[in-house]
Amino acid sequence: MSDTPASDETAAIQRWAVQLEYNGNGLVGWQRQKKGTSVQQVLEEAAQKLVNGALVPSITAGRTDAGVHATGQVAHLDFPEGAPLRAHHIRDGLNYHMRPHAIVVLQAAPVDTDWSARFSAFSRSYLYRILNRPARPGLADGQVWHVRHPLDIGPMQEAAQLLVGLHDFTSFRATACQANSPVRTLETLDVSRVGDYVEIRAHARSFLHHQVRNMVGTLHLVGAGRWSVQRVADALAARDRAAGGPTAPPDGLYLTHVGYEPDPFS
Amino acid sequence: MSDTPASDETAAIQRWAVQLEYNGNGLVGWQRQKKGTSVQQVLEEAAQKLVNGALVPSITAGRTDAGVHATGQVAHLDFPEGAPLRAHHIRDGLNYHMRPHAIVVLQAAPVDTDWSARFSAFSRSYLYRILNRPARPGLADGQVWHVRHPLDIGPMQEAAQLLVGLHDFTSFRATACQANSPVRTLETLDVSRVGDYVEIRAHARSFLHHQVRNMVGTLHLVGAGRWSVQRVADALAARDRAAGGPTAPPDGLYLTHVGYEPDPFS
Repeated sequence: MSDTPASDETAAIQRWAVQLEYNGNGLVGWQRQKKGTSVQQVLEEAAQKLVNGALVPSITAGRTDAGVHATGQVAHLDFPEGAPLRAHHIRDGLNYHMRPHAIVVLQAAPVDTDWSARFSAFSRSYLYRILNRPARPGLADGQVWHVRHPLDIGPMQEAAQLLVGLHDFTSFRATACQANSPVRTLETLDVSRVGDYVEIRAHARSFLHHQVRNMVGTLHLVGAGRWSVQRVADALAARDRAAGGPTAPPDGLYLTHVGYEPDPFS
Repeated sequence: MSDTPASDETAAIQRWAVQLEYNGNGLVGWQRQKKGTSVQQVLEEAAQKLVNGALVPSITAGRTDAGVHATGQVAHLDFPEGAPLRAHHIRDGLNYHMRPHAIVVLQAAPVDTDWSARFSAFSRSYLYRILNRPARPGLADGQVWHVRHPLDIGPMQEAAQLLVGLHDFTSFRATACQANSPVRTLETLDVSRVGDYVEIRAHARSFLHHQVRNMVGTLHLVGAGRWSVQRVADALAARDRAAGGPTAPPDGLYLTHVGYEPDPFS
């Protein structure tokens, strides 16, 4: 299913919002691909089983890339009208049918058909986790970016603040990014250390393709002492992807929250 | 290798303490078994590769069971005298040779041959993690005990305090436990809620076989409202394994710390 509205918009449907957690390892990301397992495919195929095989298209708040995780992804599902669905049946039924994939529905809530997981969302929050120690991950393999050399988070936080605000983020979006405008308002970008972890939290109305991973890949160079804080300012001003730092691996990235007003799950 | 001292105690050795993290999934536990992969085997075989195939026996602070994890296990390794070993070479070399197993050395430190990972330890700390929500784990599969029904941690914490102190823990040790005495002093047993997680932290000089998992399995019954707090006191007083609650699964258990004075890693 595509992210464009269905052509037959008058079809009788009942729309449900679902909040999802998944481990991105071994998944090709949110969107259906010709090869590999996508979150969308697993979710929609499980939903079909709840309504005797009727198609149940989904729309998501954020199309996570291959290997990226989620603790608070949101999507909506359009079930056929008349199917007797209740919130805990949807949650438990989808979780049953999505086995053995590491994808689960945390909550389900009925929403109006003018509510969209994508277009009603007013914010997205991401967490990026770097395991910053000499030893490779024993328990968090595939769920962190392992960086051996010590990172200095002071300059990383300083550089991050240069990226906060309304900017042209051309230097930090994938060259394949399909958004019309490279301008976004980055609300927060915070770097902190929690034991052996360096955690980077990003919050905005929306993000460009690879924006968080490209910002993290750039801040990593600052933390490693290879880039000055000023070079991040210069990279931003260049409006040229070649001026930005490399893309951090997907393993450390988590979509943690999607903001709605009101929140369908509260 | 066994946990008894080597018969040739005068052999020239250099002893190193190592601090380990591992994911217990797919492992048969610390100790070598006829079948399956043990932490001990992976560690000793990696150590052999650092010294041209010479045997490198190990002794551990705590023989974790199959499926149990560690974030701060400690062992010592007896390398042949004369091998040119430095702390970061041991750490990095072992981590290289232990691939692809989810077992890593966090730190290595030289110790005297009268120092023992097992006998010099004066405390062990464990964390038990229960994921307490309707949805099965998406990101923490195999690293938590998933309990669907809501647990009331107030009575769990109250019951836990009845177990703290000097007691005969016969009701909470495996019937196969080989310790001479069932008497132990439990220093702390604390139950807290962190979001969807119920975390139980236990601290003592030493524990009996399955003691933490049997206490957790019992506290779970209290949190679920199936046992009163008083029944835990009765179970302890019975000094009969049949009076205690069931054994909680290994998935949620982590050996987090082993205490030494002085700490060889500090």
